[in-house]
Amino acid sequence: MNMKKIILIPDSFKGTMSSIKICEILKEAVLNHFEQCEVISIPVADGGEGSVDCLLAALGGKKVKVNVSGPYMEKMIAFYGIVDSGKTAVIEMAACAGLPLVEGRKNPLLTTTYGVGELMLAAAKRGCKKIIMCLGGSCTNDLGAGAAAAAGIRFLDENGTSFTPTGGTLHKISAIDTTKKSPLLNNVEIVTMCDIDNPLYGNQGAAYVFAAQKGADKAAQKLLDNGLRHAAEKIEADIGVDVSALHGAGAAGGMGAGLVAFFNSTLQMGIETILDTVNFSKLVCDADFVFTGEGKLDEQSLRGKVVIGVAKRAKEKGVPVIAIVGDYCSDLSKAYEQGVSAVFSTNRLAKDFSVVKKDSQTNLKLCADNVLRLIKASSK
Amino acid sequence: MNMKKIILIPDSFKGTMSSIKICEILKEAVLNHFEQCEVISIPVADGGEGSVDCLLAALGGKKVKVNVSGPYMEKMIAFYGIVDSGKTAVIEMAACAGLPLVEGRKNPLLTTTYGVGELMLAAAKRGCKKIIMCLGGSCTNDLGAGAAAAAGIRFLDENGTSFTPTGGTLHKISAIDTTKKSPLLNNVEIVTMCDIDNPLYGNQGAAYVFAAQKGADKAAQKLLDNGLRHAAEKIEADIGVDVSALHGAGAAGGMGAGLVAFFNSTLQMGIETILDTVNFSKLVCDADFVFTGEGKLDEQSLRGKVVIGVAKRAKEKGVPVIAIVGDYCSDLSKAYEQGVSAVFSTNRLAKDFSVVKKDSQTNLKLCADNVLRLIKASSK
Repeated sequence: MNMKKIILIPDSFKGTMSSIKICEILKEAVLNHFEQCEVISIPVADGGEGSVDCLLAALGGKKVKVNVSGPYMEKMIAFYGIVDSGKTAVIEMAACAGLPLVEGRKNPLLTTTYGVGELMLAAAKRGCKKIIMCLGGSCTNDLGAGAAAAAGIRFLDENGTSFTPTGGTLHKISAIDTTKKSPLLNNVEIVTMCDIDNPLYGNQGAAYVFAAQKGADKAAQKLLDNGLRHAAEKIEADIGVDVSALHGAGAAGGMGAGLVAFFNSTLQMGIETILDTVNFSKLVCDADFVFTGEGKLDEQSLRGKVVIGVAKRAKEKGVPVIAIVGDYCSDLSKAYEQGVSAVFSTNRLAKDFSVVKKDSQTNLKLCADNVLRLIKASSK
Repeated sequence: MNMKKIILIPDSFKGTMSSIKICEILKEAVLNHFEQCEVISIPVADGGEGSVDCLLAALGGKKVKVNVSGPYMEKMIAFYGIVDSGKTAVIEMAACAGLPLVEGRKNPLLTTTYGVGELMLAAAKRGCKKIIMCLGGSCTNDLGAGAAAAAGIRFLDENGTSFTPTGGTLHKISAIDTTKKSPLLNNVEIVTMCDIDNPLYGNQGAAYVFAAQKGADKAAQKLLDNGLRHAAEKIEADIGVDVSALHGAGAAGGMGAGLVAFFNSTLQMGIETILDTVNFSKLVCDADFVFTGEGKLDEQSLRGKVVIGVAKRAKEKGVPVIAIVGDYCSDLSKAYEQGVSAVFSTNRLAKDFSVVKKDSQTNLKLCADNVLRLIKASSK
C-alpha cells in the first residue's frame, strides 16, 4: 500500500494520556512504517482544561492572553484561542473558572463565571464571528449568571438593586433585564461543546450530581439546586427561554443553560463541534486510514462519543477507521455498523488497571506499532 | 486481497484453551471474512495429554487402542496415533503413564513407564517406521527404565537378578544388558519432542524440579535423584552413552535420557518436530498468512517456542506471520527479527487474569475478528 495520508483523531485516555500525547505516539508509529505518509493530528478535547490547546494543535492559531476576573473576582490573566484566521475563538471556561484555580478554597456558593463573560467579550471585540465554548472542569454553580453580568445583563433583587449572582445568591434574583446586554455579541455565533445530558436541577441536575466535587456539602447542594430552579423560572418569565428540561443544561454548574438563555448558544456534542471546526468531512476524503480511540469503548461511548462520531463521518467517505482503545466491550456490532473497521486494545497483560496504568504510553506504542505492521503485511 | 490460504498453527493457551479449540475459533473468524479461503489447522501439542489428538487433527490418521500395563503394572487400554499412511506413530507417554491415571495414589518411587515401551513395540509391530514420542504429564521418575524393560533390555541387581526398575529402585541397578532388546525397533526412527532443558539429575534435574508434583516429598526426591545419578553411571558404563549433561534428559522423570540411551532417540523441540511432520515448509509456500500464538509471548518463549519456531520457517518463504497471544512482553524486537509480522493480545480489559480468564474464548474471537477486519480494510 502506498500510504499517503492518515488522520489521527483520538480522545484522551482518561487518567493516563492526553489526546495530544496520543497523537504524538501514533504519529511516530505511523512515520516509522510509512515515512512518506502525511499525518494529520486532531487531538480531541473533552471541553475541560487543555481544550484550547487541542484545537490549536489541530488547526494552528494562537493563544490570546486577557486580563479578567477569576472565580473570586480577583484579577488574573486568562486566555482564549483563535483559529480559522482569527474568525473563530475557542474559550475554555476552566481558564478563569476552573477547579485548579480554587484549590484549597473551593466553594460553589461564592464562585463566579464573570471572567468567562469577559473572555467572550474580548473575543468579540477582537472581531471573532464565532465562539466555541468548552465547558468542563468548572468550580462554579452560578448558571453562567456571572458571565451574563459581565456581558451587561442585569440581575435585580427584590429591591430592584442590580447584583452579580453566584451559586449562593441565585435565589435572590427577582428580575432579569437584558436590555443593556453588550451589542458586541450581537452577530457572534456561539456554539457550546457539551457531552453530558444532565438537566439544570433536580436529582440529576448540576448541584446534586456535580457540586460535591466543587466543595458543596449536602446543605449547600440543596441551596444551589433551589437557586438553579428559581433562576430557571425567572429566565422563563423574563427572557422567554425554558431551560427546565434542556439536556445538558446542568453542564458546568448550569453554564449550559446560561449559554443558551443569556447568549443564544447551541449545545452540541463536542466531537461534532470539532469535526465541523476542522472540516473533517473534507479532510478525510483522500485519507487512507483514520485512527481514533478513547480510554473505554463501551456501551456508553458507543452512543455518540468520539469514536462513533468520527466513524460516522469517515464512513460517508468510505475511509476505514481503526480504533485503538484502552478497554473495549464484547459487543462491537454497533461500532462496526457506524463505520469502525477494527478495534484494538492497548492491554497486553492480564493485569489490573492499577498495575498496568504506568505503562500506558509503552502499551499504546506497541499496539499502534503492531497495527501498522499488520497494515503493511496486508497490503503487500 | 484475494485471500486464498491461511495456516493456523497455535500453541495452547495454558490454563484456558487447547490449541484445537483455538484453531476452531480462528477458523470460524477467517471464514466469516474470507469465506472462500482455504484454512489449514495445525493445533500444536505440548507433548502432554492431547498431543496425539492434535497431530491427528492436523494430519488426519487414526487412534489405535492397545492393551498395555498402567503405572502400577495394572492392565489397561491405552492408545497411540498413526499418521502419514501408517508410516508414523505418535505416542504420548501420558496415555499409560500420565498423572491423571494415578489420582489419589501418586508415588514416583513405584510407578513405571513399562506400558510406554509396550506402546512403542505395538507401533513397530504394526509396521511404523517412525515413532514420535510426546513427553509430558508423566507420573513416573524411572528414567524410562520400565519402557526399556518392556522392549527387552535387562536390568540386573547385584545378585545378577533381572528386575524392572522404578524410581525407587534405580539405585539397585548393577548392570544393564541390551543384548535381548527386541529387534522390532531396529529400523524404527524415534524422535522425542522435548521442550525443556533440564538435566537428568541435580538441583535442576527431574527429581528436584518435577517430582514434587508427582507426589514425592523431600526425602523421596533425594532418593529419586540418587537413583537417576546412579543409573546414569551404569548407562555410561554398559551402553556407552553419557546422559549426565544432556539437555532435556530430565524431561518426564528422566524419560528424555532413557529414550536417548535405550532407544537411540533424538530429542528436539516439539514445534520443530511438528513442523517437520506436517511438512510445514512446503505447506506455507503459497499461504497468504500464518496465524500462530501462545498463552504468553515473553522473553522465555522468544527463545524457540512455538511462535518463533513457526515464524522462522514462514520467513524463509516470505509469508507474514500474525501472532495472537494472551500476554506479550514489551520488547518484541526478537520476534520481529525472526519473522513475526505483528503481535496482538487477546486482553481487552485492564483486569487481572483471575477475572478475565472465563472470557478467553470470547476475547480470542474478538481479537481475531478485528485482526481479520484490519487485513480486509488494508487490502482493499
